[in-house]
Amino acid sequence: MGEPETKRARLEQNEVKDMLDFDQATQKSLEEIDKVQSEIDSLNEQASEEILRVEQKYNQLRKPHFEKRSNLIKNIPNFWVTAFVNHPQVSRILGEEEEECLHYLTKLEVEEHEDIKSGFRIRFTFDSNPYFENTEIVKEFQLGQFEPTSTTTEIKWKPEKKPDKLANGKSENAPKSFFEWLTDNSDPASDDLAEVIKDDIWPNPLQYFLVPDLEAEAEDDGDS
Amino acid sequence: MGEPETKRARLEQNEVKDMLDFDQATQKSLEEIDKVQSEIDSLNEQASEEILRVEQKYNQLRKPHFEKRSNLIKNIPNFWVTAFVNHPQVSRILGEEEEECLHYLTKLEVEEHEDIKSGFRIRFTFDSNPYFENTEIVKEFQLGQFEPTSTTTEIKWKPEKKPDKLANGKSENAPKSFFEWLTDNSDPASDDLAEVIKDDIWPNPLQYFLVPDLEAEAEDDGDS
Ligand SMILES: [Ca+2]
Ligand SMILES: [Ca+2]
Ligand SMILES: [Mg+2]
Ligand SMILES: [Mg+2]
Repeated sequence: MGEPETKRARLEQNEVKDMLDFDQATQKSLEEIDKVQSEIDSLNEQASEEILRVEQKYNQLRKPHFEKRSNLIKNIPNFWVTAFVNHPQVSRILGEEEEECLHYLTKLEVEEHEDIKSGFRIRFTFDSNPYFENTEIVKEFQLGQFEPTSTTTEIKWKPEKKPDKLANGKSENAPKSFFEWLTDNSDPASDDLAEVIKDDIWPNPLQYFLVPDLEAEAEDDGDS
Repeated sequence: MGEPETKRARLEQNEVKDMLDFDQATQKSLEEIDKVQSEIDSLNEQASEEILRVEQKYNQLRKPHFEKRSNLIKNIPNFWVTAFVNHPQVSRILGEEEEECLHYLTKLEVEEHEDIKSGFRIRFTFDSNPYFENTEIVKEFQLGQFEPTSTTTEIKWKPEKKPDKLANGKSENAPKSFFEWLTDNSDPASDDLAEVIKDDIWPNPLQYFLVPDLEAEAEDDGDS
C-alpha cells in the first residue's frame, strides 16, 4: 500500500481544509475522513513493520540450518554444478567451458540484507582453479532506492581463460552465458536468473541435485 | 516458497535412501541435507503462519476505521461516483448512463476472507433507484482453489434499464463498461479492475474524490 500513502502525503501538505469549496457539512465530513484515513495509514505502517520483524526473525532462525546445509554440501563432489545443470533455466545459459569452471564452486549462499527489502547478496565460493584468481565472487542487489542497482566482484581471469562471449561484449538481450549473467549489471530490476537462484534454487537445491536419478527411477518402476 | 515444498514432498515419498546410487559418504551427507531441509521447510511454514496471523490481526484492527469511514462517506453526496469518475482506470470504462446509475451507490466495501489468501468480496450498496431492484450487489473472488473463480449477485434490472452492452453479450477482450466488468466472471485470475478497487481505491478513496479540485488549486497557485 505504498502508493496510496505517497499520494496521501501530498494531500496533507495542501491541507484539505483550505483548499476545497464544499458546503460546511461536507467539509466537516471530509476532514473526519482524512483523520480516519490517517489512522488506517498508521495501522498499515505498523502491520508492515510487524511483518518485517517476523521475516527478520525467521531469517535468523533459518541461518544456522543454511550454514549446516552448506557444510554438508561441501562433502558432495560437484553438488552445485550438478544442481545448475539439472535446473531448466540455469542449464539453458550454461556453456560447456563454464560448466567445467563451476566444478570448482564449493559454496553458494544467498544473504538477504538485514532490513530485507533493501536487497540481497549471492555469494559464490570457489576452490583455487585454472580459470580465475578469485575464491569468492559476490553479486549484490541494492533494491531500496528508486532505481535498483547491482554490482559484481571484479573477476581476475587467468591468461586466455576469459570466455569468448565476455571478451566480445555482452549479448543484446538476455544474458547468453552464466558468466555474462554474473557480470552483467545493466538491468537489475528484471534479473530473472538472480530470482531463480534466490527464490527457487536456494530454498531447496537438493531437489535439483537429485532430479536425473529420480527420472531414472521412474523408468525402473516395473522391477522394484 | 510453495513450489519447493511441493517438490520436496515428492522426494520424501520416494525416499532418498532407497533410490540413489551414491557412495556411502555422499549418501549419508544427502540424508543429512534432507533432514536439514525439512527443518528449513518447517521454519518456512511457521513464518507463513505467523505472517498470516499478523495480517489477520491488522485486518481486524482496521475494520472499525473502515466502518467509520463508510459512515462518513454516506454524508457526502456522490462520493463514490466522483471517486470513480476521477480514477483513470475506472473512468475509462464508465459509460454515461452507468455514471447516472452510480449516483445511487452509497457504500463500497472490500472484505477479505478470514484466511485472507482464499479470496475477498467487493460489496456495493445502493439506494433504491430507477435501474435495478437490488440494494446490494456483491462480486466475490474465491482464490484458494487451483482455479480461481468469481461470482456476482444477479442484477434484477427494471424494464428497459439493462444497458445495451450487457443485453448484446460481453465484449471479446477486456470489459468495455462498468456493469460488464461487474457481471463478467470469465477470467477472475486477471481481473484488473477488481485489483484497482481492492488495492488502490479501497485503501484510500479520498485522494480520488479530491483530485480535480487539487488540480484546480494548482492553477490558482499565484494568488494564494
Ligand atoms: Ca478550492
Ligand atoms: Ca537409483
Ligand atoms: Mg548451502
Ligand atoms: Mg468506505
